[in-house]
Amino acid sequence: MPLKANDPQRTSWIEVPANSDFPIQNIPFGVFLTRDDVITIGTRIGDTAIDLGAMHQLGYFSDIPLTDDIFLQDTLNDFISDGKKTWRLVRNRIAEVFDATNAELRDNEGHRNVILFSLEEIEMQLPVQIGDYTDFYSSKEHATNVGSMFRDPDKALMPNWLHLPVGYHGRSSTIVPSGTAIRRPKGQTMPPGADAPVFGPSKRVDFELEMAFITTDANKMGEPIPIGEAEDYIFGLVVFNDWSARDIQKWEYVPLGPFLAKNFASSISPWIVTLDALEPFRTESPAQHPEPLPYLQQQGDRSFDIQLEVDLKPRNGVAQTICRSNFKHMYWTMAQQLAHHTVNGCKVNSGDMMGSGTISGKTPDSYGSMLELSWGGKNPITLENGESRSFLEDGDTVVMRGFCEKDGRRIGFGEVRTELLAALP
Amino acid sequence: MPLKANDPQRTSWIEVPANSDFPIQNIPFGVFLTRDDVITIGTRIGDTAIDLGAMHQLGYFSDIPLTDDIFLQDTLNDFISDGKKTWRLVRNRIAEVFDATNAELRDNEGHRNVILFSLEEIEMQLPVQIGDYTDFYSSKEHATNVGSMFRDPDKALMPNWLHLPVGYHGRSSTIVPSGTAIRRPKGQTMPPGADAPVFGPSKRVDFELEMAFITTDANKMGEPIPIGEAEDYIFGLVVFNDWSARDIQKWEYVPLGPFLAKNFASSISPWIVTLDALEPFRTESPAQHPEPLPYLQQQGDRSFDIQLEVDLKPRNGVAQTICRSNFKHMYWTMAQQLAHHTVNGCKVNSGDMMGSGTISGKTPDSYGSMLELSWGGKNPITLENGESRSFLEDGDTVVMRGFCEKDGRRIGFGEVRTELLAALP
Repeated sequence: MPLKANDPQRTSWIEVPANSDFPIQNIPFGVFLTRDDVITIGTRIGDTAIDLGAMHQLGYFSDIPLTDDIFLQDTLNDFISDGKKTWRLVRNRIAEVFDATNAELRDNEGHRNVILFSLEEIEMQLPVQIGDYTDFYSSKEHATNVGSMFRDPDKALMPNWLHLPVGYHGRSSTIVPSGTAIRRPKGQTMPPGADAPVFGPSKRVDFELEMAFITTDANKMGEPIPIGEAEDYIFGLVVFNDWSARDIQKWEYVPLGPFLAKNFASSISPWIVTLDALEPFRTESPAQHPEPLPYLQQQGDRSFDIQLEVDLKPRNGVAQTICRSNFKHMYWTMAQQLAHHTVNGCKVNSGDMMGSGTISGKTPDSYGSMLELSWGGKNPITLENGESRSFLEDGDTVVMRGFCEKDGRRIGFGEVRTELLAALP
Repeated sequence: MPLKANDPQRTSWIEVPANSDFPIQNIPFGVFLTRDDVITIGTRIGDTAIDLGAMHQLGYFSDIPLTDDIFLQDTLNDFISDGKKTWRLVRNRIAEVFDATNAELRDNEGHRNVILFSLEEIEMQLPVQIGDYTDFYSSKEHATNVGSMFRDPDKALMPNWLHLPVGYHGRSSTIVPSGTAIRRPKGQTMPPGADAPVFGPSKRVDFELEMAFITTDANKMGEPIPIGEAEDYIFGLVVFNDWSARDIQKWEYVPLGPFLAKNFASSISPWIVTLDALEPFRTESPAQHPEPLPYLQQQGDRSFDIQLEVDLKPRNGVAQTICRSNFKHMYWTMAQQLAHHTVNGCKVNSGDMMGSGTISGKTPDSYGSMLELSWGGKNPITLENGESRSFLEDGDTVVMRGFCEKDGRRIGFGEVRTELLAALP
């Protein structure tokens, strides 16, 4: 099916500010609470939120086989479950309705009044009920940096790392959308030189710059997803902040991996940008040596050129960008991650989420965590207000953004913005 | 509220075979498909399944504040969410209705015909939608055995092990009820002495004898559950087989823990036995040295005397018991696990499941996995049909059972029975 929604020539009758992440070629999906306290599924063009539930009730999707209530739900899981063909039909139809030349809705004030919202009128929700959340560890630069600091610089990458996309299971219950403040966690740590652990607020709260993809129902239990089909089961991506408490992590993580150091909170940008919308920004991923086993071999341009930024805003100060990275740095691709995840027959459901792992590049200004930016606290970064940071302080706000830009076209994710509150007394 | 349902003197007008796991003092909860292809929530006395949805529709719970459809659901999540007071009211009322002296239902054939089923008429389902599943690693004997084999006998227990209940997140999507056959997984392994990994069916498929508890909504995100309250949020337990592929595990698990080695399947017994029903079998747990930090300190009898058995039945042969263990061997208690899990503010929801980790005792016949029973394959066990086993073979069926017995009283879990099928071609 042609990706008509991606037509670069198309403009919309909805105003789109210059440099918006959400031109008519984006058409992301999200869930929001309206001014009338109704939860609905919607999309966004420029700074206008569009109620797809209302559009469907008014007949704008009557030519597409959809259940009546598909957009009148508090999660996208059922729509995602409808599969790629349906996603494309809906995106193409939205592009058509909002095309500058199309008068059906443009000139119907009554319909516009129930379908369109300004961003101030809505409150974004978690877009999916996440059944299972998996986090990978697929940036070679990040794994090398962390391995050097937590273990041994000479053996920073574990022997398995170049052969498979290392991953582990995370906690779904504490994934929250942009705008939800989180609390500094308490926990057990073993201070350097101590002979017994202590309990208290973490002193090394950190962000991790990641992206995450959301899947549809992909396989039966017991059956793998071949790598050539894997992308068909990826609905879209969000920007993902995998909050971490480094001191808790260091003490707890051997031998079964991170647990309380990660499961207190993870934050996502609320609009899921479809893989289809990202298609024009497809690009190469890093060469892989040694060659992966056949079930992980993938042809063609396997990644996406998505620019990523992290801003840090102290309570009394201005936001400043402390990291610029790119999704294309990932050594292991999403298709490889999904093929690996299911090669043993592990079942993947609609709404499952898989994080990339921290996305660090080669240069120090592209490191995707405070742990790496301050090199374990040895090189604190200096903020414009004169304060310095090795890890995050109470009242700090972390803002992550992602966007693609090429030939004057831009498709973006908006932001995931989170304030770190003080620990409970 | 008195636990009237536990009255040891009570008998039922439903026949209960000698040595049944399900006397009227048990009253477990499960979900089953009836002969009419309806899914309902039910309980069990002896070998009779009881449709609680039908009972509620017929007015048997009219004195308890319950929503009309609370038992007409395909999971127990909403009922569990109602909280401990409601669980007790319902269990007490069930005990009353099925008491040998109570004629209301006993003498109403019309009602009996729609409420009671023989076990052959029903098909047990997964009792809860498991949002998040966590597995602990709380048997000191198991952790010592595994540490000795996978790492270093002199440093078998990691430094953190005696200070906190080590745990990690598992995969919810592949948890299946007793009776669901599973497939031998394929995956990457690094054969001894090889210099590159290979791909193929796991050669070291194993069971792990565990129990798992199911929680209710317990806390707001950001808030801990104090250890003194933790048991109030535990609905009940099941017997749990945490399938494992040891060769995949050995290659993949450093540094982020087990992933594909575990997430291909986990199996549970279908009836959730409430913590209330287990109350008469409360017992001591092992002394803890060093003393845990205050947030993990718990008073009184902290564990339950639950006898556990594992049978192995080869395709051409009879079942034989290869392990006898006991839940009371666990070093870390359920309350400690739940208090630890939430001390950082991690949110726990209704239907979340937490596994104990493999429950091994001190003696070799109490080891809860083939890995330990055959000591990494060095000492294969001999079966009655003359075959030997280091790990599981295709066509093997593993049956795990759990039960409490004291003073002529018995409360049990039934079984979790799973056949291991050959890998896909």
